[in-house]
Amino acid sequence: MEQPSLRIIGILHGDIAGLDEAPRNYDISDRTGTLEIYPEYQAGLEGIAAGQTIVVLFWLHRSNRDVLMVYPRGDRSRGLHGVFATRSPVRPNPIAISELKVLAVDGNRLEVSGLDILDGTPIIDIKKQLGG
Amino acid sequence: MEQPSLRIIGILHGDIAGLDEAPRNYDISDRTGTLEIYPEYQAGLEGIAAGQTIVVLFWLHRSNRDVLMVYPRGDRSRGLHGVFATRSPVRPNPIAISELKVLAVDGNRLEVSGLDILDGTPIIDIKKQLGG
Repeated sequence: MEQPSLRIIGILHGDIAGLDEAPRNYDISDRTGTLEIYPEYQAGLEGIAAGQTIVVLFWLHRSNRDVLMVYPRGDRSRGLHGVFATRSPVRPNPIAISELKVLAVDGNRLEVSGLDILDGTPIIDIKKQLGG
Repeated sequence: MEQPSLRIIGILHGDIAGLDEAPRNYDISDRTGTLEIYPEYQAGLEGIAAGQTIVVLFWLHRSNRDVLMVYPRGDRSRGLHGVFATRSPVRPNPIAISELKVLAVDGNRLEVSGLDILDGTPIIDIKKQLGG
């Protein structure tokens, strides 16, 4: 089949400017920021409220898409692993999955905590947490 | 930014032919099938072994991308919700997240259980389970 095109639904505003400042994963982060959803997708937010945990998919637009083997967490002593056996941002489709706590909702803007993602990263999907 | 293009890394072979046969979610499914990863991406599988649980992202190529409000689980009594407040396959970027148990690995083919996805669905990413 043809290569599908993603639609960017919004953008992250946060305070993590570089990879060296990013927590390893969302589950160990308390960094906060704002998901700005573009007006044409705002209707899709109906039902999201403060206090919920949501699953957010980001498109890591600065990641290398052409590397298939990495040292997990940059630790060479662990040997090379296939990217699909890791959570490295490096992969053919650099999609990150975060589970974020919703702190507040204001129209098309969601204030969230738990971020491990760089400021300015495009958002491609939001889902209800499974079982949530 | 430009709309990014996804790379299809493989295809699911399973026994779920239509939506009416699909379990609601992977967490209540024991359906098995095979993830066929295309040869050019096989190196990325290095380190995946039987017994692991992996996170698999599928591209739901038959889903409607232009609907922003749905009845959760088709139940009209619950009222319309924004798609981002649900796990509906209908959404601007129809990406499904499954956590699947690896039963066996044979070269570029992973036998898995826990499927709620239609036969023939494109695969776009595989990740290690967080904490796994």
